Amino acid sequence: IVNSWTTLSQSAIKLWEFGRSDPRKAIFAAKGGLALVLITLLIFYREPFKDLGTYSVWAIMTVVVVFEFSVGSTLSKGFNRGLGTLSAGGLAIGMAELSILFGKGEASFIVFSIFIIGFCANFIKMHPTMKPYEYGFRVFLLTYCFIMVSGYKTREFVTTVVNRFMLIVLGAGICLVVTIFIYPLWAGEDLHNLVVKNFMNVAASLEGCVNGYLQCIEYERIPSKILTFQAFDDEVYKGYRSALGSTFQEETLLGFAVWEPPHGPYKMFSYPWKNYVKVSGALRHCAFMVMALHGCILSEIQAPAERRQVFSSELQRVGTEGAKVLRELGNKVKKMERLNPGDILSEVHDAAEELQNKIDRKSYLLVNSESWEIGRRHKVPEDSEEIVGSLDDESKFLSIKSLSEAVLDLRSVEVPKGWDVHNTNMGINTPLLEDDTSENTKIQLSWPSRYSLIGDGMLNNEESRTYESASALSLATFASLLIEFVARLQNLVDSFQELSEKAKFKVPVDPPPNE
Amino acid sequence: IVNSWTTLSQSAIKLWEFGRSDPRKAIFAAKGGLALVLITLLIFYREPFKDLGTYSVWAIMTVVVVFEFSVGSTLSKGFNRGLGTLSAGGLAIGMAELSILFGKGEASFIVFSIFIIGFCANFIKMHPTMKPYEYGFRVFLLTYCFIMVSGYKTREFVTTVVNRFMLIVLGAGICLVVTIFIYPLWAGEDLHNLVVKNFMNVAASLEGCVNGYLQCIEYERIPSKILTFQAFDDEVYKGYRSALGSTFQEETLLGFAVWEPPHGPYKMFSYPWKNYVKVSGALRHCAFMVMALHGCILSEIQAPAERRQVFSSELQRVGTEGAKVLRELGNKVKKMERLNPGDILSEVHDAAEELQNKIDRKSYLLVNSESWEIGRRHKVPEDSEEIVGSLDDESKFLSIKSLSEAVLDLRSVEVPKGWDVHNTNMGINTPLLEDDTSENTKIQLSWPSRYSLIGDGMLNNEESRTYESASALSLATFASLLIEFVARLQNLVDSFQELSEKAKFKVPVDPPPNE
Repeated sequence: IVNSWTTLSQSAIKLWEFGRSDPRKAIFAAKGGLALVLITLLIFYREPFKDLGTYSVWAIMTVVVVFEFSVGSTLSKGFNRGLGTLSAGGLAIGMAELSILFGKGEASFIVFSIFIIGFCANFIKMHPTMKPYEYGFRVFLLTYCFIMVSGYKTREFVTTVVNRFMLIVLGAGICLVVTIFIYPLWAGEDLHNLVVKNFMNVAASLEGCVNGYLQCIEYERIPSKILTFQAFDDEVYKGYRSALGSTFQEETLLGFAVWEPPHGPYKMFSYPWKNYVKVSGALRHCAFMVMALHGCILSEIQAPAERRQVFSSELQRVGTEGAKVLRELGNKVKKMERLNPGDILSEVHDAAEELQNKIDRKSYLLVNSESWEIGRRHKVPEDSEEIVGSLDDESKFLSIKSLSEAVLDLRSVEVPKGWDVHNTNMGINTPLLEDDTSENTKIQLSWPSRYSLIGDGMLNNEESRTYESASALSLATFASLLIEFVARLQNLVDSFQELSEKAKFKVPVDPPPNE
Repeated sequence: IVNSWTTLSQSAIKLWEFGRSDPRKAIFAAKGGLALVLITLLIFYREPFKDLGTYSVWAIMTVVVVFEFSVGSTLSKGFNRGLGTLSAGGLAIGMAELSILFGKGEASFIVFSIFIIGFCANFIKMHPTMKPYEYGFRVFLLTYCFIMVSGYKTREFVTTVVNRFMLIVLGAGICLVVTIFIYPLWAGEDLHNLVVKNFMNVAASLEGCVNGYLQCIEYERIPSKILTFQAFDDEVYKGYRSALGSTFQEETLLGFAVWEPPHGPYKMFSYPWKNYVKVSGALRHCAFMVMALHGCILSEIQAPAERRQVFSSELQRVGTEGAKVLRELGNKVKKMERLNPGDILSEVHDAAEELQNKIDRKSYLLVNSESWEIGRRHKVPEDSEEIVGSLDDESKFLSIKSLSEAVLDLRSVEVPKGWDVHNTNMGINTPLLEDDTSENTKIQLSWPSRYSLIGDGMLNNEESRTYESASALSLATFASLLIEFVARLQNLVDSFQELSEKAKFKVPVDPPPNE
């Protein structure tokens, strides 16, 4: 008993914390209780119908079933329930008239009609376009069967239909009044906030990626949850994952938001909720690049820290500017303001160009010139023999390379031997963490790590060179993905512009002083 | 009338085609009709209870509500409904005893208890861990309110509870018999098939990406649906999108599959359905790379066709081998077989190494050596002066470059001027298609296209060089992403191994002759 008491009190504490973290859930629960109390009182005092007592179950059921979290979902369910009941009631009355013509075959006719109607309703509701009306089909089927079956004995088809419909209207009415007039919870607002949150998350993720890459953060063991794209508590990962995984939530909220009447800041009929989802989709298109950037951090193939440092300030700037643009757009969506005059992207484009120029000037750091064919081939066309002649020695290329790095003030780099530094950074060779047996981490035993498994001393020459070149190229990939991220921002800005026009966002009154 | 008749017949045709495309939907609908007929017949012939007629609505409602597409979801709903009714019934009987003690305050006590219970049930069901029992909470609430309200007049608390529960058991029993014994539709099988389908889709998408990239397929205008990750009819895009977007569907099917008893090929208690979702998650981790590869095709920054050709056979081989591995794994999942002896990844690893070696030898094609600082800097350390001295002229580097390409048999390439060919390939400069005004295409006016908008003749020299270098690097990115894809396959194979062990897949009887 003590044990179960402990469990119970722990659950209570958890629930209390859950309620504190999102008080709207508690408000919703209280509203739900209130709606039930109202319908109970009406039933107890027999208002407004005399028959209310007998058929009270319909009203209670309607309240329990229709009362949903947001205004939009309550409206949509109430509509489905009302329409389903009304159409099934009409059909049932017609079919009842018809069934009387069959005389003795009446019961068979009713059973047959139930099969046909059941088949049709179940079949049509499976069609993807009918998904929002799934509940309506259920109510339709239930009402039809109930009226036919109970009417077969009582012959009170019309009374049943009218009573049922009135009680459902009563229940749905109470739900609507409670949901709209007492602390309304709007699905549209949730959608709005979700989109803003996605912007902030992707921005944080982008910064986290770039910083993590420059600080050469490596995962000793990549959590297997990341490898299977499950929820995992990693700042960078959480950020883009929430933006990538919110599609379903957005679609659901959109489905409810379109039901909601104009309210609060959304004072417009047929408010362009769809465009919020579109902006979020464009953001997702950018977030895919952030994910690919994170992939570079997760990868076994890692660029050496020294080379990353060369591009550090440029990568950093692109990351910071990119995140700034995302935050700015997120804030604009939040405040429902149009963009400030001037190109919001000019800074980030400058940063990307600067990065590109730097890459251009130092692209020899991104590749491994040692094994270039130019240096080896001797069968060359006659006209350029003399130039190649001065180059066909690999060692010269090597000295050029280390020379160039000396110029770049990378005094600590010794190209041919310096790789050990990197190799010990590999997940496999590092001493394992103490919690390495915990279930949600896992060694990513993938292909390139075979090299390090052979052991540094025994590295086959060609393989090691291959690996070196791959690791340098990985830096190029990171930069290139970052630039592609910047390129995708334009599309995001365009979607935002479309939204801000359709939703008639206000013009910012005073541009912030810092711009 | 003619018009509405046409609409109706068109809808009928659509529904017919819908039924033909997935006959299981029609089977489900017929089963649903059958369950309703069975319960109607029981009610008509007053079997097995006398009171069935009066309370028949509960039985009908249970059938309508509990009957779901798959066995698992029907079981889960039936369980929720039964448990909700039973616990609410017990609580209601207790509360009713208590309420009598209050004498005159009985009605107030009942109303108060309804508020408290309503609040608690609504609040607890919002907790994420309670999601599978959401329906149970609803039934709980409905039952409690109904019994308290109707019992207040009739005083027949216990009778009501027992009757309601018996009828619900009857309805749920009919649903279960129909759903399990007549052409059962298993959620677990759906999950299994979905995972297999994802494998095939990603394989097709990967091949499509690599082939498209090598054939230099470019989107004149990128469909805005792709830019916002909405459904769009593009083979490559559809393939990975379906694998990426099936998370929610998998989770739902998993939630139902765990309810299903051992059946068919899944003859095991607590069958490891979770591992199917895990394998699919690992596949998704690979599919993200395919998406990034597709991103290279969508990008404004495009590598010149000639350079792609250099790496053509290696890229092709990695793509083909990668797709082969995916198809092989997909088939193994489908046939529920373990892997054949030998490393399934050896071929694709070889292919990736070959690609890496080729990159290594020809990485000068991936960068733009013209603006290397080595060629310009004159402040060099003393010890290597003589080597650099022979190199500090850009023109020499240029000739080396064109030379190397001559060696590579790229006779058509004239490096410094040949870029025009490429520039005219850019989306912006090409003559627009005739259907360019259609709504679901859209120019991706992103940053790099600014260069081509200036006009070829006026291209600023530095900017054009920056662009050239970016475009060459984009090939490196493609290759690098492809290699990362191969690296991620190991994780996929590991998840498959785990699944095949936990699910006790059979050992393949005769290894295919081609291996």
